[in-house]
Amino acid sequence: MEFKRRHLLGIQELEVSEIMTILDTAESLSEISTREVKKVPTLRGKTIINLFFEPSTRTRSSFELAAKRLSADIVNFSQQTSSVVKGESLKDTVLNLEAMNPDALVIRHSCSGAPHFVSTFCRSHVINAGDGSHEHPTQALLDALTIRQHKKNFPNLKVVIVGDILHSRVARSNIFLLQKVGASVTLVGPPSLLPPEFGQLGVQIEHNLDKALEGADVIMMLRIQRERQKANYFPSLREYRNLYCLTRERFRLAKKDAIIMHPGPINRGVEISSEMADSVKSVILKQVENGIAIRMAVLYLLLGGKERETAD
Amino acid sequence: MEFKRRHLLGIQELEVSEIMTILDTAESLSEISTREVKKVPTLRGKTIINLFFEPSTRTRSSFELAAKRLSADIVNFSQQTSSVVKGESLKDTVLNLEAMNPDALVIRHSCSGAPHFVSTFCRSHVINAGDGSHEHPTQALLDALTIRQHKKNFPNLKVVIVGDILHSRVARSNIFLLQKVGASVTLVGPPSLLPPEFGQLGVQIEHNLDKALEGADVIMMLRIQRERQKANYFPSLREYRNLYCLTRERFRLAKKDAIIMHPGPINRGVEISSEMADSVKSVILKQVENGIAIRMAVLYLLLGGKERETAD
Amino acid sequence: MEFKRRHLLGIQELEVSEIMTILDTAESLSEISTREVKKVPTLRGKTIINLFFEPSTRTRSSFELAAKRLSADIVNFSQQTSSVVKGESLKDTVLNLEAMNPDALVIRHSCSGAPHFVSTFCRSHVINAGDGSHEHPTQALLDALTIRQHKKNFPNLKVVIVGDILHSRVARSNIFLLQKVGASVTLVGPPSLLPPEFGQLGVQIEHNLDKALEGADVIMMLRIQRERQKANYFPSLREYRNLYCLTRERFRLAKKDAIIMHPGPINRGVEISSEMADSVKSVILKQVENGIAIRMAVLYLLLGGKERETAD
Repeated sequence: MEFKRRHLLGIQELEVSEIMTILDTAESLSEISTREVKKVPTLRGKTIINLFFEPSTRTRSSFELAAKRLSADIVNFSQQTSSVVKGESLKDTVLNLEAMNPDALVIRHSCSGAPHFVSTFCRSHVINAGDGSHEHPTQALLDALTIRQHKKNFPNLKVVIVGDILHSRVARSNIFLLQKVGASVTLVGPPSLLPPEFGQLGVQIEHNLDKALEGADVIMMLRIQRERQKANYFPSLREYRNLYCLTRERFRLAKKDAIIMHPGPINRGVEISSEMADSVKSVILKQVENGIAIRMAVLYLLLGGKERETAD
Repeated sequence: MEFKRRHLLGIQELEVSEIMTILDTAESLSEISTREVKKVPTLRGKTIINLFFEPSTRTRSSFELAAKRLSADIVNFSQQTSSVVKGESLKDTVLNLEAMNPDALVIRHSCSGAPHFVSTFCRSHVINAGDGSHEHPTQALLDALTIRQHKKNFPNLKVVIVGDILHSRVARSNIFLLQKVGASVTLVGPPSLLPPEFGQLGVQIEHNLDKALEGADVIMMLRIQRERQKANYFPSLREYRNLYCLTRERFRLAKKDAIIMHPGPINRGVEISSEMADSVKSVILKQVENGIAIRMAVLYLLLGGKERETAD
Repeated sequence: MEFKRRHLLGIQELEVSEIMTILDTAESLSEISTREVKKVPTLRGKTIINLFFEPSTRTRSSFELAAKRLSADIVNFSQQTSSVVKGESLKDTVLNLEAMNPDALVIRHSCSGAPHFVSTFCRSHVINAGDGSHEHPTQALLDALTIRQHKKNFPNLKVVIVGDILHSRVARSNIFLLQKVGASVTLVGPPSLLPPEFGQLGVQIEHNLDKALEGADVIMMLRIQRERQKANYFPSLREYRNLYCLTRERFRLAKKDAIIMHPGPINRGVEISSEMADSVKSVILKQVENGIAIRMAVLYLLLGGKERETAD
């Protein structure tokens, strides 16, 4: 597989063929995680730095396991323990880490554009693990892999994304990806969390969930941050739940074979009922599993594992 | 060695033959940690997750080193950095980690029964690294290994366990194990920390340490949590020390070849005098060393390293 | 290469030949970090414990990467997660870790002398990663390696160290090292941060930076801790900057080929202008890179990698 790009900063700049290369690579690497010996020597001797300026379990550990299953060395940096507390700038922090000759930097930062900025002065491969409300490309890729496993083709698929679209990097990356591959995207949420500007992205805007679910193939529920309520984005959790929680009744409005997705962690009884989160239509845990495969694929394609074999 | 059990949740459900298999395996693996190259490829490609909801140095790192010496990959999760701060349930946290295809989850949790609960829905092997005031099975196993190394046979051995029995998962696991292998157990502590219900476990209850020490082969001192004093379990550290601190004078009441144990970390001058903690009768550091061997044995037996060799 | 010493506690006790052995070893190991496969099996099966009682990104991770590039296993302990919060003494913490059979302990502690103390009762190799305001030997060694790469010979070199000399373990270790190898050292800072006692070390004392820079080959700027201002060591950051910030104007007073060093993290616009930090005369990032090589060399020399080959 060929992949010419130096960094993975966002979905917006990827071509469809690049997206497909990542998905295909992930598909072929996913089998490693189910082996007795779930490890290949492909990236032995490569150094990866997990540079997380926001707390994270899932994404950090997903990259960590992906790296280890490819035999790379990975070192974790978190906000709490890093020199950032001493007032060092992002650029200086990164330049110092770079001087240790890593091969890749996996960066999560609360500022949109931080990984792009880093990539402008960095020799290593930069992977965006979520920046502000901008992009979270590996999440959109693992979502696409999950959709493809269940739906075969993207064109003519109706994907409904529900919740706090305004602040969601997951939604943005998914919108970019799904439109590139030909799916039709409908965004749903209260006007305060889904302003009309999103219409400019070429998606459907809908404030009524019931209406949006008609004919849906994929329902992607986003996490409600309880802090948003304090900031008056919606009046109460109870009202939000009444209007936007995915319940069994609502799910019946979608296609019979619709699948339910969520980037996690879920708020049971807020944006999704426990019944639906645990139903056979939910592919939420498959998304997590695919996360490892996608991150293995991204590391593999960027770090030039081409010369070496993936076979153990 | 054969070991049919899927999880290690507690000592209570183990048969004597299983306990002996773990001890024998640990005995044979302990030599690895003293080699020049202290590593065998036995569990290469296995993924172990350390899921600690309570802070811990000793136990977490003991599992981490045990895993690394068997060449397994291990990833650490602690309370502070995990999604639990976002309000995710234990079940959802575990299911998400499981989706990453680990082979084993090592769980410490402040709620008694948490690892049992996890084992009901989990494909991975679950290892209890301490749950509430319920059990701490690897601690009891490493204690048993230490006792066996010094005393040869368990039957007719008099083991005295001293301190905060009420809240101690270490005491409970030790009581279960020692009774199974035929040792006689005497519990000692103030009535507030050793209520009469413990008599139902078939052990001796004693509130006078001097009396209990007569004829003791093994003296196991438990850590006093200073928080207990604020909760009025005992009037003052000074009074506790007067009645229950293991001093040289008191130690003379035990058998001449008695050994002194403590699960650590010790409070010098509270439950044990510095002189006794550092004396040749103390096997406290041997317990720590045996901890690695026991955890290697448990990982080895559960993760089915049988097909592979332990030789390097 | 031969290295008979058991621990690396400080520069003060090293002989020049030992320093040169470490620098030469680092020079030959530095190439590993630039390979495609940046890893050699030299220390496979060795266990290293990073025991950090003060927060640190750079030094901890530098040791971590150095260990991993030599294939050693490394386990991190930090203040926050360790048993120290439960009131355990340093000695007991170390003895407990030692019982796990590590080969080396890398210790950073806020108390001067802590690593020396640990080395008195410890079987493992102890490496001082910074103790109070006493020493930071690997920093001085990486500084020396950097100087040697740019200046060839130490004798007759004029090295100017500027800033908070009083509290700086970096300054102290550098003073010891540079004097041993025959360089001439000039210390510069306000009298409150550079008391006259330092003259007893055989160095030049100077309070006027402009004067000190005349003829300088190497300019080593130290980090100003903003806390010092609150403690009245200097009246204001502005005044400090006026007197001691390395600017382009000031740099012109030094030799044409002078190099600029800083142990990091830098305070741009306080002790060094951004222009000078980023200039071609700055070797600050080369220092970080050399940090990995120095730590690889120290681990290699202490852990007896002599019998094995460094080639992959």
